[in-house]
Order: sequence, then structure tokens, then C-alpha cells
Amino acid sequence: MTDINRWLLPDGLEEALPDAARRLEDLRRRVLDQFDTWGYDLVMPPLAEYLESLLTGAGHALDLQTFKLTDQLTGRMMGVRADLTPQVARIDAHRLRVQGPNRLCYVGSALRTRADEWSGSRSPLQAGAELFGHDGIDSDLEIIRLMLATLAACGVERPSMDLGHVGIYRALAQDAGLDASQEQEFFDQLQRKSVPEIEQTLAAWQAGGMDPAACARLRSLVDLNGDATVLDAARRALAGAPAEVAVALDHLQAVVARLKASEPGLDLHLDLAELRGYAYHTGLVFAAFVPGSGQAIARGGRYNEIGRVFGRARAATGFSTDLRAFVRREAGAPMTPRQTVLAPATGDVALEAAIADLRARGVRVVRELEGQDNEVPGGARLEQRAGEWTVVEH
Amino acid sequence: MTDINRWLLPDGLEEALPDAARRLEDLRRRVLDQFDTWGYDLVMPPLAEYLESLLTGAGHALDLQTFKLTDQLTGRMMGVRADLTPQVARIDAHRLRVQGPNRLCYVGSALRTRADEWSGSRSPLQAGAELFGHDGIDSDLEIIRLMLATLAACGVERPSMDLGHVGIYRALAQDAGLDASQEQEFFDQLQRKSVPEIEQTLAAWQAGGMDPAACARLRSLVDLNGDATVLDAARRALAGAPAEVAVALDHLQAVVARLKASEPGLDLHLDLAELRGYAYHTGLVFAAFVPGSGQAIARGGRYNEIGRVFGRARAATGFSTDLRAFVRREAGAPMTPRQTVLAPATGDVALEAAIADLRARGVRVVRELEGQDNEVPGGARLEQRAGEWTVVEH
Repeated sequence: MTDINRWLLPDGLEEALPDAARRLEDLRRRVLDQFDTWGYDLVMPPLAEYLESLLTGAGHALDLQTFKLTDQLTGRMMGVRADLTPQVARIDAHRLRVQGPNRLCYVGSALRTRADEWSGSRSPLQAGAELFGHDGIDSDLEIIRLMLATLAACGVERPSMDLGHVGIYRALAQDAGLDASQEQEFFDQLQRKSVPEIEQTLAAWQAGGMDPAACARLRSLVDLNGDATVLDAARRALAGAPAEVAVALDHLQAVVARLKASEPGLDLHLDLAELRGYAYHTGLVFAAFVPGSGQAIARGGRYNEIGRVFGRARAATGFSTDLRAFVRREAGAPMTPRQTVLAPATGDVALEAAIADLRARGVRVVRELEGQDNEVPGGARLEQRAGEWTVVEH
Repeated sequence: MTDINRWLLPDGLEEALPDAARRLEDLRRRVLDQFDTWGYDLVMPPLAEYLESLLTGAGHALDLQTFKLTDQLTGRMMGVRADLTPQVARIDAHRLRVQGPNRLCYVGSALRTRADEWSGSRSPLQAGAELFGHDGIDSDLEIIRLMLATLAACGVERPSMDLGHVGIYRALAQDAGLDASQEQEFFDQLQRKSVPEIEQTLAAWQAGGMDPAACARLRSLVDLNGDATVLDAARRALAGAPAEVAVALDHLQAVVARLKASEPGLDLHLDLAELRGYAYHTGLVFAAFVPGSGQAIARGGRYNEIGRVFGRARAATGFSTDLRAFVRREAGAPMTPRQTVLAPATGDVALEAAIADLRARGVRVVRELEGQDNEVPGGARLEQRAGEWTVVEH
């Protein structure tokens, strides 16, 4: 191994050097301050937990993403968190036990065995907000609006948004009598929007006796994406489906109407085959995109079932994003250099007081170090003039 | 396993619920803002790295503290960071390559296999500052003063401080001809200040032919602690020692004199057997204590050798602390409840504007959710009065 390779970081693990770190810290504060004004309380889940609590109810995908550790104190298996959302749901269900709505937010690093398809990172600085204890359009909308406000705070003013509802596919799959493996197989094909595969699969199932109308409804999902008129097309295509489907379409329609009223400029895209996080989502799902990029920059949805495994069924919806993704977009953009005042290494009590005073007012004061070439950006110095310590520009 | 046990966190791993999280976030910002005004640039090292770069030069103790992971992408071993200081030293030596002094700071969670003896936690929120590229009293003092300013920012106004110099024991051990295992054995006995063991060990070594004067000097270390007069006693007891010892004592004397001048109220305690971090420290070492507590709340020292293994010898000194320790001290202290304004779930465009305006001014606005009992602390509500949306106190 060469010396250069030796200090290379593992793929998907990044460090932030001063410029990027300043940007990240600035974003972090803006996002947390905004969460706070929306009524969301900060929590900080632990970096690692026992696997049982980390993975319960979170699905197979998260298990594969989670690095496992042996706790030397107990011999039990722990995992490094790969996603903070299930941790926050555990905190809501098990630790806080609020009866009414509970708004929680977080920001923290996660670690993943493999790069997530939507962020490309193995260690996102995950920021997000979760609203527990309310099932309905008000909480769905609050989380979507908070996601859009968060993107705006991070410099993405005009995202486009995909909106879907996992209840539709779930009801159609159940109606068609798909078993778990069939449901997964068709789900994969839908995610890839692979029409030839989908048609071949449905033809085989129909030949095996599956209801042709149910098959046709499943087939229609792959085409049901576009602007709000998709909902009308869906009502026609899914007319004979179980009642849950109409309920889900009504819900989508109401969300779209209220979003169009409050966010008139939003580029909204409906996609009934949009099923990210299908394993744990139960209702409305959404993802936000930077125009011109195929990769979601934030995503979320409803996951009413997750609380059940923590001993308390709680309605829940939330979203999360990776703050590093915003900083990556700005990489290389010029930054204002930090104005700095240089001060002597030693001096009288008045010098110490002058330095403390400048720093208390937020001025960056760097002290000289004996025997060094002490240069700072800007060239301002603290010097004694007529007995007073004064900042002198050079 | 009972339901209660199931959600217990592993020993030494903590989560911060809303009150503690607010305190931690507040501390984090105060500490980082202060680092910034002292001229320290923030860096964010990765949560995990390849073991070679994480452990190189850091010593055996850190290896034992580090959780190991297999990188599925390469099959190489990675570790979760157990200490951020060596990561920051790598960034200075390998990534930034500044020629003159370089001031870096950080705050981040670390993970440890076992609770550290000085913090009791396996996942400290480690905050610290490192000053690279200067070897001398100015940088030693700058870091000590920054540590004291950091403690003050965290509410510890009058810490006591232990000051030592690992160069003294190192020179005496070499002078006495101790081999590595003897040096470690005697080091352990010194750390425990176990006089009977120390005398027994020295008697055996002396019987084996070791210079009685060198043995007497080693014996004296355990008593050389107390106020600044210890330095005079040390000069007498260590009179015949190698020249490095007198240099180290001169250095300590100069540090004490300048600290007494700039920090007149500081409760300063010298301890020539204070050797924490002996494996990587090379000069002045120090630890700060909350009066009445035996556990250091911050610690640091000079570690000039660490850069060498990263391909670039760089003088270095720094300190670190665990922000969680300050919050633990305040646990249970009452917090001002966050003033909150309740706003209707739906309304006209003017309502949306009024809410956005309040939030932009930092006011926490919680929106009602249909079908819920929406109570907030304080009882203020956004209501329409004479056509205007107004905050009404109830």
C-alpha cells in the first residue's frame, strides 16, 4: 500500500475540512432553528444500540445496512445507527409517552454498510423531523411543508416533488391475492418501471387463475404518474378496486389541493408506483428533487405501524435529508474569508481585557506565537496607540 | 428478556431527550463560537476510517477502545472513532499541509468499547481544540487558556487544574535504564500512587544493580505534587538527573508564572506523577477538575510526535472535553418552557404569512391538527381580530 492510499478514506465516508465544515455547521443551525420555530423538540439518539431495539420493525433493508458490533460488557450484539428515524420512533413510543401529538427532530451522523441509492453516502449527516400521534391530512401537510421550508433554508428554493401512496399498491396486491414473495417481485418490477417484465409476470399470473381485472389494475400502476390529472386517470383505471384505494385517492387529491393553494409554485408530480420505504411506510410517501437531478434530496412519508413494535401503536409521519448533500452542491463555491485580528502573545492586563472584549463581540482574535511567522487574513492587528489597545488595519 | 429490558440502552451509551438535547445543542454552539473567536477552524472527521489511519501512532490503549468493523466494499478493517484527536492530527498532517501554526477544533460523538476512566461514558460528545506547528510556552498557554474559557462557557467558572510534564518521568526512566516493560510497570504504580509497591519495586531493582541515585529520583516523583513550591522541591530531589529534567522544570515554572499572572484565581496543582496519555504525550500535560469531583472534566497536553507517523513531524498541543458531562451536572435543573403560539390548521393566505413572519422572528408556532387536543405551554393563540391575525394570550 502506498503512503497516499494509506490515508484514503473508505468509499462513501467523508471528512469536512474547514470550508465545508463551516457550511455544514451553518446549515445544521439554520435547520435546527427552523425545526424549533415549527414546534419540533430536538432529541439526540445514541450512536449505537442493541440490535433488538435498533432494528425492531425497521425491515430487512435496514438490517443489511447496519454495521454490527459485539458489546464487550454483555456479549450482546449492538449496531451502529444506519438511520435515525426508527430511533426517534422508539424515543416517542417508549421514553416520552406523550399522549397527544409529539413533534421531534434530530440531526446526526449515521453509518451504513453500503451507499444508499438515494444519497450516495455511507455516512449522511441525517437531519429530519417526525410528527407522532396524529393520523390525517393536517400532519401529512405539516411534514411536507416543513420539508420544503428545510430545503429552502438549505438553498433549494424550487424543488420538484414526487407524491405517492403505498396504500394503493398494498390494497391492489392483497385484492389480487399476491403472496409475500409475489408482492416483493412485482414491487421490484414496479420500482424499475420495467413494463415488459410486468406484463410477462401478470400474463403468467392470469394464466394461473388470477382475476384479470385485478391484474389490469396492477398493470395500470406503472403508467399512473404525471401531474394532478393522474388522479382522474387512476379513478377510472382502479374503479373496481377495494374501497381503501378510493380512500387513498381522495386523500391524495385533498393533499394536492391544499398544497397547490399554499405552495403555488411547487412542481408537483404524482406517481402511484412511487413506493420508497414500502417495508415500513403505510400511507402518503413523498420525495423532493433538485431540478435536473434524478436523486432525491429529501424524502419522507407516513409510517403508522412502527410504534406498534415498540409497545405502543402511534400514528407517525416524518421526513429526512442529508445535510452533506447540500454542501456537496456548493463545493468549490468561494467563501468569505474570516476577518481576523492578530494580537501579541504577551502583554499587560489591558491587552488581555481588550482581547476578551473583542472575542466576546464575536471578533476572531489570533494570538502570535513566539518564533513563528504569524500571518492572518486581512492583516488587522491589535496594537497599543496612545496607551490604548486598538485594532489597526494594515 | 422483559419488555422493559428490551429498550434499555447499552451501559455508557446515552440518548438526550428534549431538555438535555436543548442544553447540549446550546453548549455545542457556545463552545464552537468561542473556538471560532480564538481563531480555530472547525473540521469534521469521519465517523469511521480504515484502522491503519485511525490507530497509527495512537497507542495500544486506543486500539482496545476501538470498535472494529469489516468494510464490505473492500474487505478491509475499519474502526469507529474512539477519539477525534488523532483524526484531527491526520487532517492537519496529511490534508491541510499548512506550513505555519494551524488551529483546528471539532465536536463530535465518539464510541468506545469500554467506559473511559475519566468520563464514565462510552459515547462522549467530544469537543476540543488542537494547535499544530508550534512548540513552546505560547502554544501551551493558549491551549490551557482556551480550555479554561471553554469550561467557563460551559458553566464551570472555578475549576482546579493539575499540571504535569511527561518529559520528567521519561527522562528519569531512561536514565535509570528501565526497559519498556519496567517503564510500564512503574508507570502503573505511579498512577495508583502506590508507595509500598513503588518502594518494593525500586528495592528489587536496586538490589539488581540499578543506580541508587536514579532509584531515589524515581521514588521522589510520587511525593512531588502540591502547589507551586513543588517545583523547588523537585529541583532539589532531581538535582542529579539528566538535563532534560531541568529543562522540563524550567518550562513548568514559566507556565505557572504566566498562568498565575493571567488567571489569578486559578486553583493550580502540580503533579510530576501526572502522566495521563503517557503513550502519546511528549511534554506539558494538564487536566481540569470541578471542585469536589475526582474526575477530570477536561484534559490535554502536548503530543509533538503524532504527526511523524502521518508523514510530517508537527509540534502539537490540544485539549478535549465531553459536553455530555456538563449536561449531566445540570440534569434535573428546571428549564424555561419554550413559549409557543398555537395557530389554526387551515386558514387564508394572510394566516400563512402571519405564521411565516412569526417563525422568521424566532417565535415557535405550532399548528393545530384536526381532531386533536392541541395544547401548548403558555396558551397563546394566533387569532383573527378585526381582520388581522394577532397573537392573543389566554
